Amino acid sequence: MKKRPLPLSKVYCHLEPGPVVMVTTANKQKANIMTMSWLTMMDFEPPVIGCVMSNRNYSFNNLLKTKQCVINIPTVAMAKAVVGVGNCSGAKVDKFKKFHLTPIPASSIQVPMIDECYLNLECRVIDAKLANKYNFFVLEVVKAWINPQKKTPKTIHHIGKGRFIVDGKIIKLASKMK
Amino acid sequence: MKKRPLPLSKVYCHLEPGPVVMVTTANKQKANIMTMSWLTMMDFEPPVIGCVMSNRNYSFNNLLKTKQCVINIPTVAMAKAVVGVGNCSGAKVDKFKKFHLTPIPASSIQVPMIDECYLNLECRVIDAKLANKYNFFVLEVVKAWINPQKKTPKTIHHIGKGRFIVDGKIIKLASKMK
Repeated sequence: MKKRPLPLSKVYCHLEPGPVVMVTTANKQKANIMTMSWLTMMDFEPPVIGCVMSNRNYSFNNLLKTKQCVINIPTVAMAKAVVGVGNCSGAKVDKFKKFHLTPIPASSIQVPMIDECYLNLECRVIDAKLANKYNFFVLEVVKAWINPQKKTPKTIHHIGKGRFIVDGKIIKLASKMK
Repeated sequence: MKKRPLPLSKVYCHLEPGPVVMVTTANKQKANIMTMSWLTMMDFEPPVIGCVMSNRNYSFNNLLKTKQCVINIPTVAMAKAVVGVGNCSGAKVDKFKKFHLTPIPASSIQVPMIDECYLNLECRVIDAKLANKYNFFVLEVVKAWINPQKKTPKTIHHIGKGRFIVDGKIIKLASKMK
């Protein structure tokens, strides 16, 4: 594993642009992966993330019970696996095996991270008040890992029905924004 | 105004990819604009959006009191105005005037929309339970407008300190995802 810890203050730079992510969870039997686009930063440091995980997903009960998950960010090179993971259920399939993804241990929670993803965020649920009504969970990132070899990772952004926008060029403007 | 109504079922295709947006609110004295990246889809139809608006923002009290806002999506052509709006406060500045943006009336709420943005979503706050603790608001989109002349709008995605990723190419993969 060639990953290094990413300072928690830098997490927002990766999630704020809205990439599709792969969320890992686990129960006593097995780990699972789901594809997710519905998440947002909620605070900078410690990083807080809000995400929507439908109760129709196999991962929902894992998250509700263990209060742990990893948010893994894939690049466009993994787009086929991203869509494949989104098209089947963990109730029937071992998605790590089916999509040739490598589980590696997290440092502070009992959920595997996806080695092939360039960024991995170990998260704990800190608020589930809106989980029943909106399937909404508030997560705190407790540890972050980045592959330092991926200098300009191209992520993907879902626009419906399997169509994705790939990151284009980067522009810079004079800003006082964090 | 050349905009046409956008079916509410299509709203997610524009917000899910994570564009920077401009949020308009109003009080009895004046309307305001703020730049926002922290928002996510929460449901398809009617579209539900979750967003974080800091209580340090002038717009916060407008949203809390009126429970109305418009989410306006700019393209990269408006990037300078997007950053400019984010760099000053509505407490001191009339941002519509300062940045030469045109307010146009919404159809169902008392908040102006930004004509220059290719998409405008009229929203009402439906849940503010997490507003005090996390500055988090749950919005329902009650009406959506799109500029049909913008066939492939290039939006921007904030990655910190005034740097933005511009939308690149679109890829399509066989998907069962909505």
